[in-house]
Amino acid sequence: MADVKLLNCFVSPFGNRVRIALAKKGVEYEETAENMLTKGPLLLSSNPVHAKVPVLLVDGKAVCESLVILEFIDEAFPGAQLLPADAYARANARFWAAYVDTKMPECAGKIWKVPKGAPAVEEGKKEMVGVFKTLEGELGEKPYFGGDALGYADVALVTFTPWFLTYERLGGFSIAEECPKLTAWAARCIGENECVAKSLPDAEAVYQFVGGMRKHFGLE
Amino acid sequence: MADVKLLNCFVSPFGNRVRIALAKKGVEYEETAENMLTKGPLLLSSNPVHAKVPVLLVDGKAVCESLVILEFIDEAFPGAQLLPADAYARANARFWAAYVDTKMPECAGKIWKVPKGAPAVEEGKKEMVGVFKTLEGELGEKPYFGGDALGYADVALVTFTPWFLTYERLGGFSIAEECPKLTAWAARCIGENECVAKSLPDAEAVYQFVGGMRKHFGLE
Repeated sequence: MADVKLLNCFVSPFGNRVRIALAKKGVEYEETAENMLTKGPLLLSSNPVHAKVPVLLVDGKAVCESLVILEFIDEAFPGAQLLPADAYARANARFWAAYVDTKMPECAGKIWKVPKGAPAVEEGKKEMVGVFKTLEGELGEKPYFGGDALGYADVALVTFTPWFLTYERLGGFSIAEECPKLTAWAARCIGENECVAKSLPDAEAVYQFVGGMRKHFGLE
Repeated sequence: MADVKLLNCFVSPFGNRVRIALAKKGVEYEETAENMLTKGPLLLSSNPVHAKVPVLLVDGKAVCESLVILEFIDEAFPGAQLLPADAYARANARFWAAYVDTKMPECAGKIWKVPKGAPAVEEGKKEMVGVFKTLEGELGEKPYFGGDALGYADVALVTFTPWFLTYERLGGFSIAEECPKLTAWAARCIGENECVAKSLPDAEAVYQFVGGMRKHFGLE
C-alpha cells in the first residue's frame, strides 16, 4: 500500500475534491490541516510554485492542483473512475470542471473577499446565479453531470456547496430559490454518495471560518 | 476517416496548440478562420458558453477549451501521445500546462491590452520574466518539458513564442537576454518538430495583428 498524505484546509473546495476522490476509491490516507495564514514547511516544499492546498503526497512524491490530482487518482489507483471511458464524454467532463474553476472562485470572491456592502457583492451574486443557471442548463434532466453516477465535474462543483450558506448570508439571496435544480443536485450528491457526505465540512462551520478570515482582513 | 474541423484565429496561442496536436498525429482537418470581433455563427453555436476559439469539431461534435482538446486528441486519435504513460509524469505535465494557462494570459494582457506606457506594462514584464524563470527552473537541463521529446506542457507553452516579439516591442525588454534557456527551448521546439514549425504564425504578423487590435480599441 502506498503512503498517501493530503495537505488540505477543511473549508477548501479544491482540497475537498481530493477527499472525495480518495474516499470513492477507498484509498487510506492521512490528512494534514494547513493553516492558510502561516503556511507549513511541507506545503511550501511540496508546492513551491503556488504554495496552496491541496497537495497529494504519494510515497513522498507531490501532486498539486486539485483537478490534476483528480485525474492522477483516477489513473494511479484501482477502482471506479470519475472520468468516463469515452473520449468525447471525458472532454465534456473536463470542460465543465474547467468552467467551475474559471468561474466560481471569481464570483465567490466578489461576495466574500470584499468589504460588507461593497458594490462587488451585487455583481458577484448576479454572476454566480448566471454560472449556476448555465450549469443547470448542462445538467438538464440528468441526475448528475456525469450522467447516472457522480463523476469528475460533479466532484469539481459539489465541494462549493458547503459555501452556499456563506454566499447567501453575505450576499442576501437564496440559491435554492434562484436555482432549484442545482440545489436538488447538491442534495442528491450528498444523499446518495457517502464519499461526498463524509468529505464535506458543515456549512455553518464554513460560515464561521469565513467570518474569522473577514475579521482578520478587516472586511467586517 | 472522421470529418475534423478547427475553428481558430491564426494568432491564438490556444488555437495553435490544437494545430500542433493534430499535425503531430497526422490528422487531416479543415481550419476556419474566426474573426475575434464579429464571431461566426458556428463558433457561437458550438461554444455557446465561452464563444471562444479553439473549437474542434469531429463529425459535428464540438470539443472546447484548448487543454481539453489536447487530451481529447491524445485519446481519440491513434499515434504518438503528448501525455506520457506514467500517472505521476502525466500529472506533472498537466500541472505545468495549467501553470501556463493561469499565468501567461494575465501577464501578457498587462503588456498588450493596456494603453501605451501604462504602469501595468512594467508589472506585466516583471511577472512574465518571473513566470519564464520558474519555467526555466522546471525545464532544468532537459531538452523539453516532456523530457526527451515534445510533450503536453511544451505544446501548451510554445504557441506563446510567436508573441514574444510583440511582448518585447511593447514592453521594451529582451526575452532572449532575460531567459536564454527558455529561448533555446523555443528554438529547439520549432527546429526539431515540423508539427510545431508549420503550426505557428510569423512573429511579425502577430505584431501587426496586435497593432491593429490596439488601434481598434484605442490603446495606441
